[in-house]
Amino acid sequence: MGWVMGLYRMTYISRAVPGLGYNDLRDIMGKSEVNNSHVGLTGLLCFGNSIFLQILEGSRQAISHTYHRILQDPRHHSAEIIAFDPVLQREFVQWSMKLVQIDEDSPEKMRRLYLKYSGEVAFMPETMTPAQCLQFMIDIDPARSGVKV
Amino acid sequence: MGWVMGLYRMTYISRAVPGLGYNDLRDIMGKSEVNNSHVGLTGLLCFGNSIFLQILEGSRQAISHTYHRILQDPRHHSAEIIAFDPVLQREFVQWSMKLVQIDEDSPEKMRRLYLKYSGEVAFMPETMTPAQCLQFMIDIDPARSGVKV
Amino acid sequence: MGWVMGLYRMTYISRAVPGLGYNDLRDIMGKSEVNNSHVGLTGLLCFGNSIFLQILEGSRQAISHTYHRILQDPRHHSAEIIAFDPVLQREFVQWSMKLVQIDEDSPEKMRRLYLKYSGEVAFMPETMTPAQCLQFMIDIDPARSGVKV
Amino acid sequence: MGWVMGLYRMTYISRAVPGLGYNDLRDIMGKSEVNNSHVGLTGLLCFGNSIFLQILEGSRQAISHTYHRILQDPRHHSAEIIAFDPVLQREFVQWSMKLVQIDEDSPEKMRRLYLKYSGEVAFMPETMTPAQCLQFMIDIDPARSGVKV
Amino acid sequence: MGWVMGLYRMTYISRAVPGLGYNDLRDIMGKSEVNNSHVGLTGLLCFGNSIFLQILEGSRQAISHTYHRILQDPRHHSAEIIAFDPVLQREFVQWSMKLVQIDEDSPEKMRRLYLKYSGEVAFMPETMTPAQCLQFMIDIDPARSGVKV
Amino acid sequence: MGWVMGLYRMTYISRAVPGLGYNDLRDIMGKSEVNNSHVGLTGLLCFGNSIFLQILEGSRQAISHTYHRILQDPRHHSAEIIAFDPVLQREFVQWSMKLVQIDEDSPEKMRRLYLKYSGEVAFMPETMTPAQCLQFMIDIDPARSGVKV
Amino acid sequence: MGWVMGLYRMTYISRAVPGLGYNDLRDIMGKSEVNNSHVGLTGLLCFGNSIFLQILEGSRQAISHTYHRILQDPRHHSAEIIAFDPVLQREFVQWSMKLVQIDEDSPEKMRRLYLKYSGEVAFMPETMTPAQCLQFMIDIDPARSGVKV
Amino acid sequence: MGWVMGLYRMTYISRAVPGLGYNDLRDIMGKSEVNNSHVGLTGLLCFGNSIFLQILEGSRQAISHTYHRILQDPRHHSAEIIAFDPVLQREFVQWSMKLVQIDEDSPEKMRRLYLKYSGEVAFMPETMTPAQCLQFMIDIDPARSGVKV
Amino acid sequence: MGWVMGLYRMTYISRAVPGLGYNDLRDIMGKSEVNNSHVGLTGLLCFGNSIFLQILEGSRQAISHTYHRILQDPRHHSAEIIAFDPVLQREFVQWSMKLVQIDEDSPEKMRRLYLKYSGEVAFMPETMTPAQCLQFMIDIDPARSGVKV
Amino acid sequence: MGWVMGLYRMTYISRAVPGLGYNDLRDIMGKSEVNNSHVGLTGLLCFGNSIFLQILEGSRQAISHTYHRILQDPRHHSAEIIAFDPVLQREFVQWSMKLVQIDEDSPEKMRRLYLKYSGEVAFMPETMTPAQCLQFMIDIDPARSGVKV
Repeated sequence: MGWVMGLYRMTYISRAVPGLGYNDLRDIMGKSEVNNSHVGLTGLLCFGNSIFLQILEGSRQAISHTYHRILQDPRHHSAEIIAFDPVLQREFVQWSMKLVQIDEDSPEKMRRLYLKYSGEVAFMPETMTPAQCLQFMIDIDPARSGVKV
Repeated sequence: MGWVMGLYRMTYISRAVPGLGYNDLRDIMGKSEVNNSHVGLTGLLCFGNSIFLQILEGSRQAISHTYHRILQDPRHHSAEIIAFDPVLQREFVQWSMKLVQIDEDSPEKMRRLYLKYSGEVAFMPETMTPAQCLQFMIDIDPARSGVKV
Repeated sequence: MGWVMGLYRMTYISRAVPGLGYNDLRDIMGKSEVNNSHVGLTGLLCFGNSIFLQILEGSRQAISHTYHRILQDPRHHSAEIIAFDPVLQREFVQWSMKLVQIDEDSPEKMRRLYLKYSGEVAFMPETMTPAQCLQFMIDIDPARSGVKV
Repeated sequence: MGWVMGLYRMTYISRAVPGLGYNDLRDIMGKSEVNNSHVGLTGLLCFGNSIFLQILEGSRQAISHTYHRILQDPRHHSAEIIAFDPVLQREFVQWSMKLVQIDEDSPEKMRRLYLKYSGEVAFMPETMTPAQCLQFMIDIDPARSGVKV
Repeated sequence: MGWVMGLYRMTYISRAVPGLGYNDLRDIMGKSEVNNSHVGLTGLLCFGNSIFLQILEGSRQAISHTYHRILQDPRHHSAEIIAFDPVLQREFVQWSMKLVQIDEDSPEKMRRLYLKYSGEVAFMPETMTPAQCLQFMIDIDPARSGVKV
Repeated sequence: MGWVMGLYRMTYISRAVPGLGYNDLRDIMGKSEVNNSHVGLTGLLCFGNSIFLQILEGSRQAISHTYHRILQDPRHHSAEIIAFDPVLQREFVQWSMKLVQIDEDSPEKMRRLYLKYSGEVAFMPETMTPAQCLQFMIDIDPARSGVKV
Repeated sequence: MGWVMGLYRMTYISRAVPGLGYNDLRDIMGKSEVNNSHVGLTGLLCFGNSIFLQILEGSRQAISHTYHRILQDPRHHSAEIIAFDPVLQREFVQWSMKLVQIDEDSPEKMRRLYLKYSGEVAFMPETMTPAQCLQFMIDIDPARSGVKV
Repeated sequence: MGWVMGLYRMTYISRAVPGLGYNDLRDIMGKSEVNNSHVGLTGLLCFGNSIFLQILEGSRQAISHTYHRILQDPRHHSAEIIAFDPVLQREFVQWSMKLVQIDEDSPEKMRRLYLKYSGEVAFMPETMTPAQCLQFMIDIDPARSGVKV
Repeated sequence: MGWVMGLYRMTYISRAVPGLGYNDLRDIMGKSEVNNSHVGLTGLLCFGNSIFLQILEGSRQAISHTYHRILQDPRHHSAEIIAFDPVLQREFVQWSMKLVQIDEDSPEKMRRLYLKYSGEVAFMPETMTPAQCLQFMIDIDPARSGVKV
Repeated sequence: MGWVMGLYRMTYISRAVPGLGYNDLRDIMGKSEVNNSHVGLTGLLCFGNSIFLQILEGSRQAISHTYHRILQDPRHHSAEIIAFDPVLQREFVQWSMKLVQIDEDSPEKMRRLYLKYSGEVAFMPETMTPAQCLQFMIDIDPARSGVKV
């Protein structure tokens, strides 16, 4: 079934296993970039509050197969699909994958960013709508002008 | 029932008891800021003509519980809901709560502001539509460029 | 502030205290009907799974004051506003208030009704959108043709 | 029936009695400004070709009562309502009432202004749609940049 | 200014003087029908709770002149315009004018009708939107199937 | 039937008789400007490839009567209406009538202009939609910045 | 310029010369039917109050040429275009041309028909919008169910 | 490039060579049905006035390849694409291909059908819009109720 | 992350391993029904041409977790997400899961059904849009009136 | 059938025969420019990955005849129509035809451009929607500011 076509954007969340550290994240990113570069995926991976929020852009096949591969990784669990939609063009064409660790910014800056698109004072993307997730990711994209609050 | 999600904006009005003074307002604001900061609420409180017009932004739960707590305060009465709607993003993310005493500005400036969004020459938010209330609050938000008439 | 006008519909949920029984519900309804009849309120009260889902239709003032009075009743807690909107006409004009105890219907019939408008197999209105709550209430309105699944 | 609310814009035309002069207009404006200022009305009064075109902005009650008072003035007749609509905000908040005598401008400038929004070479607002009347009034508003043709 | 054209619908309310009786209403209707028939006006006049709610359909000129004539009648006061709009076709083409005395119907039937389109238990058209007024008038139009609640 | 009102825009095309020359065009324009100025018409007349494309703006009556008079002129034939629509404001208020002889511009410039809004390499307005005719006329209006390709 | 394409609907009005009689109308219709049948025109001609209201459906060329020929007929004058629009399909495909003399129906029936779509008690199509003219013509089309008021 | 997907509808016209007869049409249809059945094409072929009007429904690839094959057939020429659009579902799922010879119906019936969707009295699909072509084909589809005029 | 809410519909396709037989399908369905019934999932599973097309309706969490569990089943591979959207109500509330083996129907009936919503003569859902997949599934739902072509 | 009119845009793809070289492309372009210039066609031809993606703008007739002529060229095959639509104005009025060889740009630049509007890392326009093809062609148009990624 290798002949589907088109451009899609998927958003999902998952929860990190306890004790996930810097080396794990570096390893995850390294593998992601190689895989995604081969299959034409782009996107952003936001990590904070032990939660992953990821956006994947690419063909229907590449997104599905990559998402299924990601599900096998034992370092996270409880993955949940937030959105899956056809799009005219990509928002994150610069990144085969880019990690943004939002806990590393100043607490006040992060607090305002969480508040801007959600009802919560911590990073809880499971309470945000797909449109709020996308706007949040655009706001923290390092290829853009950085966090705007 | 603590697992609802999303971002909402509520607008309500209420009437101050006779004799409400500066100390009362300072006390109300102090408590509001502490509570709201904890539960992720933002908003503006406009006071004038013995009337409170307040906008609360946050989760459905935080807005409801805070509103119910506010109803217990004996310093106001006759509260009335004006609007309650889901929103994409907050308009008052800078303020856990901010008091704007509109009677303190120049009379002519205030008169034009009342006229701009209502049919009345005094502050009578009960005669304004939800959209007019929101525009009025944006116009008087100190985090923006101030009163524009 | 007694001169507001218009027609609104409010939806809220709350949780019953443990041990709430038939006499409590009968008492709640009796008082509701008398109050609502005087102030021009109509609506439906759905009870199940220890949760109240209520729709109130009427003037902005009547809805607000009645809702605030309901909040004082010690037999429920954790009330949360679901929706508050102006409407062209009422959906429940036949009822000053009508109680529908959904637990009393056949389990299979109820299960299908819960499934129809939510992702849950039990009555969990806090997971439903305002439009799903309204459609659910219209489906169980005894003045209409009864539960349709 | 003094408890209606909201913000409206009314447009009407009427015909001046023969011989109406400068003193009459000065007197009309003086009284208008005092009355309108009290009841929160704003607007513009355009006079030309022996015709009045007036826009009134304010509460439903203030517009109606003022219009009915204006009808009593023996210096005009044949009044006709052009439009009456709720609005989000006022267009003429600077003026309790402002007279614009369009016959006093240069003939060529006036001719182009008449042509811009109507099929006529003279000031005949009775042939213009409500949207054309409003745009015409905005074009001649002295608080804006003046006649634009 | 006698050459305007088009088809419009006007809605207004006014308050009857104390002691207005059957003979007055009969006299008002008799004169209305003769005048309206000559100038091509149609409509409905609803009387209840000492309030008149009237809809006039016809040319801009006929509506305006008739409304101004009605304002002269000392048997009512506090007239207020509710709506004035161009329409594709008339809703009350059968009636040069038709009086509907809503107080004469059964109290329960009337109560439901008031509730259907307003927040009030009595006839208070000043609290209804223009769309609610029109639907109410269509519901009570004797040329249709009568009150439907 | 002289009492119609409003503002309209008409577009039509016609074909010049063989041998039509500069003197004819000068004569046509001279008469047009006088007539149009009297009846409040504005517009543009484009001539090229032996075809006239004309836009007339004004009252329904003025456009109709002028168009009928133009039809009598023996110097053109095969007139055909392209569009007739009410408009909010005029596009050619500067010109009682203005002739644009598009054959006089550089061939390459003209070719691009024809191509921009049509499928043809010559001036063949009969193959253009009303919207394409209007945009073409706006592009060649000397009162604007001239031909833009 | 004989190669234009598409399907259009034109509406126009004109005024009959004094003394126009039955023989004239019979003659007009006879010629119309022959001409229209050849060039693929369909439509309806309404005559009353010494006014013609005609709808022509067909190609742009056929409508324009036929309209220009009609303008030559000395038995009417003051023709005025009401509307000219492309349409998906014809409304009067049954009639090469059909005359409807509306003065011949009962006065009350005609009065109601005039009132239904206009502000006037007599046949004055110059005061009606294009949509009102079309609905009026559909209502009196003998190929449909006849006058509906 | 054999992996495209989706469902499309194409409309084109072409002109028959002189002398095309019944045997040619029978041969064309025979081959069409076999080819189309294999590649999943459906549609209708209308022949009249020496013109073919054909609708093809299927995959982008099947439509394109079949259309290119049809272009090779020396029995027609001057083919022209009218429309090519993605569709939700087919309109002619019953026919691998079906020939409708519209010249064989009664002249009056055909005349009305031509008139219904075009400005012409003969079959000239090149003057019809894509929507008119589709409606015409639906009207003559033998799988539906036949010609409706 | 167990507190998400709402109602969603997911569509995906996958490919069966070679040799998949009746016992496998019976086993898959048996497990599906038990799992889905517990977590409030409903839907339809269509099998044909060695391809699964499945629609899952339920909470975001239940859909995601069930989909991830299904991915573990070694009897299929190459799964691909087609659509994931919030919905107002379910389309398949009658089925915890229902298998429809489309290869078992008559070949001609199936062929028409494939053609109706796709460009292919075989069951190739990977070439259909999400809307076409949903309509196809509604057409074959045994709880409805069966296959409609 | 030479009298059709209007302005259209067609997009198609085809595959080059093996061994196609620079001389072939130069020859194709030379002939295209001469032909297109005569019949009023404009457009862009993108070549890469052995695939042609071409946009043609012009009359329905010119596009169809030119497309059919292009199909005869033995240097490509497997042509497929992507889109055919009427347009208000051309996007490529500067080019009778312009070749853009995208393989000649830097690999990283090209890779980003492919990714921007498709799910693939190579030039595979058959997987792009018509809107994505048009945006891609506008991005690489040398008459604009060049490739923008």
